[in-house]
Amino acid sequence: MEFKEIKEKIKSFVKKEIIALEPWILNSDWSDKLPKLDQIREKVRVNKLWLPQISKQYGGLGLNNEQFGEISEILGASPYGHYCFNCQAPDAGNMEILIECGSDNQKEQYLYPLLEGKIRSCFAMTEPNFAGSNPTKMGTFATKKGNDYIINGHKWFTSGFDGSSFAIVMLITNPKTDNPHKRASQIIVPTDNKGLEFVRNVSVMGHSGSGWESHAEIKFNDAVVSTSNILGNEGEGFSIAQKRLGPGRIHHCMRWIGMCERSFDLMCKRALSREISQGIMLGNKQSVQNWISECRAEINAARLLVQDAAKKIDAHGSYKSRADISIIKFYCAQVLQKVVDCAIQVYGAKGVTDDTILSYYYRHERAARIYDGADEVHKSRVARLILKEYLK
Amino acid sequence: MEFKEIKEKIKSFVKKEIIALEPWILNSDWSDKLPKLDQIREKVRVNKLWLPQISKQYGGLGLNNEQFGEISEILGASPYGHYCFNCQAPDAGNMEILIECGSDNQKEQYLYPLLEGKIRSCFAMTEPNFAGSNPTKMGTFATKKGNDYIINGHKWFTSGFDGSSFAIVMLITNPKTDNPHKRASQIIVPTDNKGLEFVRNVSVMGHSGSGWESHAEIKFNDAVVSTSNILGNEGEGFSIAQKRLGPGRIHHCMRWIGMCERSFDLMCKRALSREISQGIMLGNKQSVQNWISECRAEINAARLLVQDAAKKIDAHGSYKSRADISIIKFYCAQVLQKVVDCAIQVYGAKGVTDDTILSYYYRHERAARIYDGADEVHKSRVARLILKEYLK
Amino acid sequence: MEFKEIKEKIKSFVKKEIIALEPWILNSDWSDKLPKLDQIREKVRVNKLWLPQISKQYGGLGLNNEQFGEISEILGASPYGHYCFNCQAPDAGNMEILIECGSDNQKEQYLYPLLEGKIRSCFAMTEPNFAGSNPTKMGTFATKKGNDYIINGHKWFTSGFDGSSFAIVMLITNPKTDNPHKRASQIIVPTDNKGLEFVRNVSVMGHSGSGWESHAEIKFNDAVVSTSNILGNEGEGFSIAQKRLGPGRIHHCMRWIGMCERSFDLMCKRALSREISQGIMLGNKQSVQNWISECRAEINAARLLVQDAAKKIDAHGSYKSRADISIIKFYCAQVLQKVVDCAIQVYGAKGVTDDTILSYYYRHERAARIYDGADEVHKSRVARLILKEYLK
Amino acid sequence: MEFKEIKEKIKSFVKKEIIALEPWILNSDWSDKLPKLDQIREKVRVNKLWLPQISKQYGGLGLNNEQFGEISEILGASPYGHYCFNCQAPDAGNMEILIECGSDNQKEQYLYPLLEGKIRSCFAMTEPNFAGSNPTKMGTFATKKGNDYIINGHKWFTSGFDGSSFAIVMLITNPKTDNPHKRASQIIVPTDNKGLEFVRNVSVMGHSGSGWESHAEIKFNDAVVSTSNILGNEGEGFSIAQKRLGPGRIHHCMRWIGMCERSFDLMCKRALSREISQGIMLGNKQSVQNWISECRAEINAARLLVQDAAKKIDAHGSYKSRADISIIKFYCAQVLQKVVDCAIQVYGAKGVTDDTILSYYYRHERAARIYDGADEVHKSRVARLILKEYLK
Repeated sequence: MEFKEIKEKIKSFVKKEIIALEPWILNSDWSDKLPKLDQIREKVRVNKLWLPQISKQYGGLGLNNEQFGEISEILGASPYGHYCFNCQAPDAGNMEILIECGSDNQKEQYLYPLLEGKIRSCFAMTEPNFAGSNPTKMGTFATKKGNDYIINGHKWFTSGFDGSSFAIVMLITNPKTDNPHKRASQIIVPTDNKGLEFVRNVSVMGHSGSGWESHAEIKFNDAVVSTSNILGNEGEGFSIAQKRLGPGRIHHCMRWIGMCERSFDLMCKRALSREISQGIMLGNKQSVQNWISECRAEINAARLLVQDAAKKIDAHGSYKSRADISIIKFYCAQVLQKVVDCAIQVYGAKGVTDDTILSYYYRHERAARIYDGADEVHKSRVARLILKEYLK
Repeated sequence: MEFKEIKEKIKSFVKKEIIALEPWILNSDWSDKLPKLDQIREKVRVNKLWLPQISKQYGGLGLNNEQFGEISEILGASPYGHYCFNCQAPDAGNMEILIECGSDNQKEQYLYPLLEGKIRSCFAMTEPNFAGSNPTKMGTFATKKGNDYIINGHKWFTSGFDGSSFAIVMLITNPKTDNPHKRASQIIVPTDNKGLEFVRNVSVMGHSGSGWESHAEIKFNDAVVSTSNILGNEGEGFSIAQKRLGPGRIHHCMRWIGMCERSFDLMCKRALSREISQGIMLGNKQSVQNWISECRAEINAARLLVQDAAKKIDAHGSYKSRADISIIKFYCAQVLQKVVDCAIQVYGAKGVTDDTILSYYYRHERAARIYDGADEVHKSRVARLILKEYLK
Repeated sequence: MEFKEIKEKIKSFVKKEIIALEPWILNSDWSDKLPKLDQIREKVRVNKLWLPQISKQYGGLGLNNEQFGEISEILGASPYGHYCFNCQAPDAGNMEILIECGSDNQKEQYLYPLLEGKIRSCFAMTEPNFAGSNPTKMGTFATKKGNDYIINGHKWFTSGFDGSSFAIVMLITNPKTDNPHKRASQIIVPTDNKGLEFVRNVSVMGHSGSGWESHAEIKFNDAVVSTSNILGNEGEGFSIAQKRLGPGRIHHCMRWIGMCERSFDLMCKRALSREISQGIMLGNKQSVQNWISECRAEINAARLLVQDAAKKIDAHGSYKSRADISIIKFYCAQVLQKVVDCAIQVYGAKGVTDDTILSYYYRHERAARIYDGADEVHKSRVARLILKEYLK
Repeated sequence: MEFKEIKEKIKSFVKKEIIALEPWILNSDWSDKLPKLDQIREKVRVNKLWLPQISKQYGGLGLNNEQFGEISEILGASPYGHYCFNCQAPDAGNMEILIECGSDNQKEQYLYPLLEGKIRSCFAMTEPNFAGSNPTKMGTFATKKGNDYIINGHKWFTSGFDGSSFAIVMLITNPKTDNPHKRASQIIVPTDNKGLEFVRNVSVMGHSGSGWESHAEIKFNDAVVSTSNILGNEGEGFSIAQKRLGPGRIHHCMRWIGMCERSFDLMCKRALSREISQGIMLGNKQSVQNWISECRAEINAARLLVQDAAKKIDAHGSYKSRADISIIKFYCAQVLQKVVDCAIQVYGAKGVTDDTILSYYYRHERAARIYDGADEVHKSRVARLILKEYLK
């Protein structure tokens, strides 16, 4: 199948099979919607569209970053788009890590079931007691004892922990190493491991959620896992995370652009259909026109920036493209927030109801400016990289 | 009791009795929290702080607009502040209308129980099919037939309908009158009236809510009420609404400033307590410092503008102060949004959780830029008023 | 010569020959700098870099829009870049018009001397008494009388009139035609024509300037020109202007991006060299870092948008790309203003002096948001084009 | 004379005598306009309006900060307002310093002629080689030798140096003192002092200016002055500067508000008089309406904030009000920039010409966000003061 055909097929699938179901899906619990989502996943598989981001060797469609970016925009139109194609966070990132760094055993036990969609996974990095802006500071430790690690610590925003089979946990194994970027490792911990305590699904923006749609707070109380559960070598936690970062950012940003386009489309339709006085529609008002054209300009700009970054990653790798990757993070997050805000304002009272998807985006995507590095962190980083070039 | 004493008493009451209960209140249903809130209301009464906005003649504290503004800021710190003192929207506005325009019978049946806190009420104005920016366009009609009005129409965002005893309904009684501002009337309709259909509590920002914390969609299907249920005379719907508007805006804006101050306080505390690297707190970062000082400047500016408008209303009445009243609407709504946004950003991941009040403000107050006239409507109005002065 | 080579040559030429002269050029009168600029032009010719925007047939380098865009960015680094390569406004646009619509005689008399750089020209469109946002409303008229047009009217912002040989004048020839876009024509008027009165060089941002660096106010008092001076046919004034518009906008926007890059470069150098306390440079401050990364993101986005629009023009023509052309107008103008503003702020007091180019940009480019259609006009146009698509 | 009468008189004086002369004054050299300005000053004296900011004891009107704030707004409408009333910077600040800290001799020699308007003065603080954001870092030193100071250093932005009689120079006298705020002193240096070299009037925003309207770069090359020229004691340079700061900021901010009001007035008049299509004026467009109402809101807010700060200074002194003083600095500077920018945009092409005062404000007041402490410096300061309160 040519990429163009894949794209068209996915586009129509999302519209017909996923967006159509939203009114029902959005207002139900994870356990209620799971059977229905599983049916859709089955159709995706039958249509040979499963795992678009994964290489053919591992059963995926083998798209590059630029191509998967385009798909991610299409899937991003619905909160369930990525899930249905098994390329949802955090599983997609975990698949990548396992493919790149997993041992044969780890692949057998964790990767293949994940690729098949039989299990879900999660990634435990964020901690309540340490600022995410400084990832080298962490309070979760693994102490080696014989063939085991004994883990203690406290994590939250472990998204999708609830109902998943294993967590990849970022933690300190080498606290005394000089280089703060060599202190951490990533270790696989089954979610039913003894000593791994589920505290709660943190209530976020009014909902604690469940299943894939939740953000757990968890504790490690002398949790014991085999040393064979480590990904790569001790101290490689950061370098592994780095690898995963670039492509992940492309996916995320394009997902946001998918939301932008859907919000933009809603805004335009409202502008054309809402009469404010005899024969004058909302779209005739200059404020609304300003928003429409500013949003159009900024969405276009955002997409071009992400595509440009994707090309750079495909050509030079994530590390050399890290300034561009940081730029799209803060730029796209801000565009998303603006577009959703404008669309809500054009909708008026209806914009804050759940009769459209806008309120969902508004609530769920405020975090876009925070997770994976707050805007301010990325801005400082970009500036330092730029200024460093001058000192060469 | 001197005003200063009242103020101090209320301040400490809000902190001790209301904010302290929030963690419990915020996460429960209206039916669960009602008994607790009723206990607090009883204490308010015992402390002689009940109905701060109402004249002494009707059992209140008799504060003027400027004074009640200060109280409203204090109460605004908690979502339940106004409710506990029986000065919450929409009941406070309805009390005002009934005091100014209610017949003796209407006062007997509706006003006094409302003042005593025995019943709740609602105000049905917004319609799903007509833009709120043009209040003269409406699809709800009352046709006179003998001593009755027969009402047909469709409303939503009838806040607090669920569990309330009566609605004041804005509707068209004189569709053919030339002056579009003389077509509407306000009519009292008991919520259990035949032909008044409860459609649903509209899900807003993820929750459909219940009781006082809900926004109903309702329909009038040949609902019949006595002509004695009209407030004032036919065609006076707008002029009655106008009267209510000015003081209402002061109260709302000061309530928002209360939220701003609470958010600001949370932001500062976080800035001081969150370490991002050895000895460096969030508050040492210039971006955070920028937000703190910009928010301080804008909150101060907002308060001064509202106090200034309150003085003008007290001195010259709402009509002559209408440009100022519109100005504080859009200015304060925007400041509120900025302050809450900054506070969330300073909190990081915790800012989007429900572990602080910030996410509640974020979700509930996006509507501040929409309800009671979208920002853009007020801006156009202010500009026209200003330009009109030049033509004199 | 390959495009890549052309580009490199021009880049180094601008740096060595033009920017190097600026300190001297910027502070002198047009008559003083002209001999020096003529010398530089001669070198450009010798280096075979003359007329990069013109087809080979007419003695230029034959670059397409996308390519000339890149050159325009390079030339844009200096206020004299375009002039030295004979692709400066308004002459470049006039060349284009004459090539496309000029008669053999017109080409002989006006185009060839212009291409050779022997004369300068100007374009008289803007009028003091009519808003530029509505180009169909104009107060300059040409009345046919035998083989002559008798012209009356009032223009200003006729840039470069002072010292130029001829003006292309936009005026009404067919006032009664129904279609308001068919009323205007473009007519060539020699600047020494009887009845063409030079009123003044309008003082703009503190300077009235002279020569190419001026904006004249002129009056037509029964000025008589031959009917053979018309470009194309009567009523084609707008369609001719349209043709010129697309490529012109690419050139302008890329010129602005050239200014952005130069300002950005200055900002970074200042950030690295200005110490604010022991060992702490300006570039260590988070506010400065924010500006650097935001400006980097927005300049990149602007360039990608312009390149994208250039490709569309090259592929589909200006008319089909008009929404994109409007988008880059307002988007790039705003980015330019932001970047210059940030650079000035980083420079501090020095930023408002004429010791750097920044103050020059600041003063001269405020007009970028106004000329060729104010931002607001373009925003409304884009929104209407977008909404129209929905109605198909 | 009552304050109200003073105010009315000054208002009408500014309009009739000063603004009326502007078209002539703005386009001439200082030496040309001086005789005319002297005539106006004479009239001010005759009308007993001279020195509104100075106590009656020293021959002024004896207004407090709040009152003089109101006057400063009125005078601020014209660039020559303050000059005509002899309350222009930097002389007004120098008068204050001399009154508070001057010895009898210093008063005799410098203060009285200044109060009478017989001489002008300047204040030399800013240095080209050190960031103004850190006032404790300075490269100008005075070394005591017998009864003399020998001064060496380099200053710029010594506004009004050209033609003035003396400079008050901020410099280091006690370089080794631990407290960096005790190292500087203020010393009077006659402008014709040997060793005080005039380098140039720095070209600012396109003009190097002359007389009061210039910003000199000067050098001290072993300039010798008597030790009796020091103001107060050695090391008191900062504390003297502090005293001067608060009232100075009120005056400046109210001057800016005067500019805001004049720009706002121009904007409204343009909105009402510029037709963009049949019967549709600029003021009918929603973008223009948005600007008008946003500017109105922000100007009102700015004035209320400044008045509030003035009251605090009058009640508690500058030191205790320093957070408020910093807030009005950055808040008002930003409002000024926004209002001028909006007014220019409403004017269109005419807005960038010198046919209105707007371009003058645009060029001269970009520096408002830089001088007397860049916005960012004040924002950090305010945040630190606020956070410090929490630690008490």
